[in-house]
Amino acid sequence: MRRRLTDRVASQLERICTTTTNAGVLHRHGKDESHHECVPPEAVVFPSSTAEVQAIVRACADGRVPLIAYGTGTSLEGHIQAVEGGVCVDTSNLSSVLAENPEDFDARCEAGATRKTLNASLRHAGLAFMVDPGADASLGGMAACGASGTMAVRYGTMRENVLGLTAVVASGDACRFGGRSKKSSAGYDLTSLFVGSEGTLGIITDLTVKIHPVPPCAAAAKVGFETVRDAADSVVALLCSGLPVQRCELLDAATIAAFNLYNRDSLVERPTLFLEFADVSADAVARQLDLARDVVSDGLGQDFQASTDEHQAALLWKARHSTYYAALALKPNGRAIVPLSAFADCVDATVQDIQASEVVGPVFGHAGDGNFHAILVYNDDDDRAYLHKLHAIHDRIVKRAIDAGGTCTGEHGVGVGKRSYLGRQFPRATLDAMAAVKAALDPLNIMNPGKILPPP
Amino acid sequence: MRRRLTDRVASQLERICTTTTNAGVLHRHGKDESHHECVPPEAVVFPSSTAEVQAIVRACADGRVPLIAYGTGTSLEGHIQAVEGGVCVDTSNLSSVLAENPEDFDARCEAGATRKTLNASLRHAGLAFMVDPGADASLGGMAACGASGTMAVRYGTMRENVLGLTAVVASGDACRFGGRSKKSSAGYDLTSLFVGSEGTLGIITDLTVKIHPVPPCAAAAKVGFETVRDAADSVVALLCSGLPVQRCELLDAATIAAFNLYNRDSLVERPTLFLEFADVSADAVARQLDLARDVVSDGLGQDFQASTDEHQAALLWKARHSTYYAALALKPNGRAIVPLSAFADCVDATVQDIQASEVVGPVFGHAGDGNFHAILVYNDDDDRAYLHKLHAIHDRIVKRAIDAGGTCTGEHGVGVGKRSYLGRQFPRATLDAMAAVKAALDPLNIMNPGKILPPP
Repeated sequence: MRRRLTDRVASQLERICTTTTNAGVLHRHGKDESHHECVPPEAVVFPSSTAEVQAIVRACADGRVPLIAYGTGTSLEGHIQAVEGGVCVDTSNLSSVLAENPEDFDARCEAGATRKTLNASLRHAGLAFMVDPGADASLGGMAACGASGTMAVRYGTMRENVLGLTAVVASGDACRFGGRSKKSSAGYDLTSLFVGSEGTLGIITDLTVKIHPVPPCAAAAKVGFETVRDAADSVVALLCSGLPVQRCELLDAATIAAFNLYNRDSLVERPTLFLEFADVSADAVARQLDLARDVVSDGLGQDFQASTDEHQAALLWKARHSTYYAALALKPNGRAIVPLSAFADCVDATVQDIQASEVVGPVFGHAGDGNFHAILVYNDDDDRAYLHKLHAIHDRIVKRAIDAGGTCTGEHGVGVGKRSYLGRQFPRATLDAMAAVKAALDPLNIMNPGKILPPP
Repeated sequence: MRRRLTDRVASQLERICTTTTNAGVLHRHGKDESHHECVPPEAVVFPSSTAEVQAIVRACADGRVPLIAYGTGTSLEGHIQAVEGGVCVDTSNLSSVLAENPEDFDARCEAGATRKTLNASLRHAGLAFMVDPGADASLGGMAACGASGTMAVRYGTMRENVLGLTAVVASGDACRFGGRSKKSSAGYDLTSLFVGSEGTLGIITDLTVKIHPVPPCAAAAKVGFETVRDAADSVVALLCSGLPVQRCELLDAATIAAFNLYNRDSLVERPTLFLEFADVSADAVARQLDLARDVVSDGLGQDFQASTDEHQAALLWKARHSTYYAALALKPNGRAIVPLSAFADCVDATVQDIQASEVVGPVFGHAGDGNFHAILVYNDDDDRAYLHKLHAIHDRIVKRAIDAGGTCTGEHGVGVGKRSYLGRQFPRATLDAMAAVKAALDPLNIMNPGKILPPP
């Protein structure tokens, strides 16, 4: 159901802030970085303050016009599709770092500030914001989508790193949730409710995030395995050892092969773990490396390589860093169908499934979180039978993950892409409670409608 | 407004599970460990399964009878007062550890299982549940109250340690929120919403929590300071250094004096930091101690003492461990008025305020979280003027904390004791959003009514 942006609301918006209906701009705001099709909004607005966002929301609420918050468009589940029409609220003019509090380990930013902007601003203090999803996403978008990434094994996801936020809800009120305290038990934790709510409960306009000291000494390591199961088992052994692993990434043989092809390199094409350690002294890091070497050797790891030199470390990790584009390059015009997340137990079955189905699908993941991705690559001219195979594999991965006690989506949210799976993961009563919360905060259903909750 | 438990509902409850109206039992279930008065429920029920809790909730909902979940009664803000009458749901028969998954670092327990029960069960695997509020509270109660404690600086609070839970909501439905994944972005994070909801949104019947490897080597340290400000500054310096401090507790001179009096000991009566470190090897711990010694020396710390011997370490920490009862013993029949939480900046002002007011009030805290407590001690026969002074100090501490960007309650929840402060901490729009969520999930207001939200 599309709800039209009326001329009256459009002219109200124009009085509030920069507003455009330029076709190119609309197109860019209707499509994320995934395979999900472009569904452009009817207008894009560029507010510069929370007050402007409030005015926009009031104007749209008045006309029952949907609102879709937009950060950098790097989400992957169709979150920004204007499936019911409406106005895209681009937060790129809300990009200031409002406060840095090095002694309290927190910083407050407007929602459109990106993580790299914040980190550039913090560098002088030896501190950093530690959630790293790869893309230079906006902090508001990262909060809205519950982003995580390679550092989550040590520093947690957005859920653990957002201390407070301001959100404009459907009434036009600006609600301040949480605060600056590292912990608080003052009322309902609506901060966490808004983290991962994908713009469906309100529009985040600023947020306070945790920042962390950057350990002065670091090391990278790489180790190969015969099977993905051996590699996954070694991840568990590493974490059980109590080692404060900073990153722990698993690439399957197909991913290494994709890297070799893309970079004309010749790494051994076998399941490989990429590790990163950091600590307060070079000695401490060396000790971590020694222990890690022992643990992975017990776990049948081969050719453990490590370095504390920044340049060498970057070389060791190169295969991991270029995974996504290397995977896409496996087929010309390759596009990722879905990133998927589940427990490490499922990696083995997934690799076998992909091999048996004879499709292209490198598997890699943030192994320390039990989180993996399969990039099922296709071309625009692939036939229906091939696409059908990919969808079937996708379906089986999700089912396998849920059956293993996992989740259908570990870090890219639900958007439109995973809506149908929520009913598999949760009983009806759970979805009813979610729907009740949504209806309570957005009774007109104008906040990014058609996302997250499955159709009734 | 009291809503009577009718004979009809009472007889329904008796058919479901053990039910009592014994006056002594009612009395014990109407009072927590704080100064808040006893307000007994009309009946106490002892369900043994989620299904029995569902039946109890349906019976009570039918008669509009309030339900108050009860764990071990160790909360401190009057959470379990039956302020509108009703039925206390004692979870002590829901005390099983349902599953331990050492390889996934999680365990699932019924809500009435206590943290020590879980930890006894995990000990053989070298793993532990790391939230330690002092009391051997039930895990359900700890989740409901958003508990934390001395280990939060390293392992986080309940918010970070509850992966999923089952809650029976007012409709009688059992909702499963979250799951076993370390991270998930599948729909609204209602797990976090229920953590800290103090039984006002539903009754938690089981929960899945994170468990952690217990580092094999540990050390304790103690260091004195001239002023609490110096001690607080050293806490910041320690955390900035990147040291993975496991516990970091600050006691003011009055608290040490209370300890000396209570234990007939003769520790130097000055602000003192108690530290704990843990790591994978004795060497690594020794290096942490060296670095900590350097940092606190730069911060004017005196007489740094440390030990890696378990017995010696326990001796060093003895003053911290007996703080609460030592403080209470300062006045015969002493009772704590309120534990309070705020940023370290406020400790100094609070200590001065207490000294200037000439009342008894040792100050100590989980300094690494910017969290401190003031135990304002009084006797039943203290005159009104003395009690008035205590209330005024309490009021100023909360106001100072909120003004500093802190919270009126860091880890003991709101209950009835902090309701009036929520309006100071949050704007009306925020409280409206909280009230909307409460009304959506509990439209009849039968779940622990009269708690958290300020009266309209």
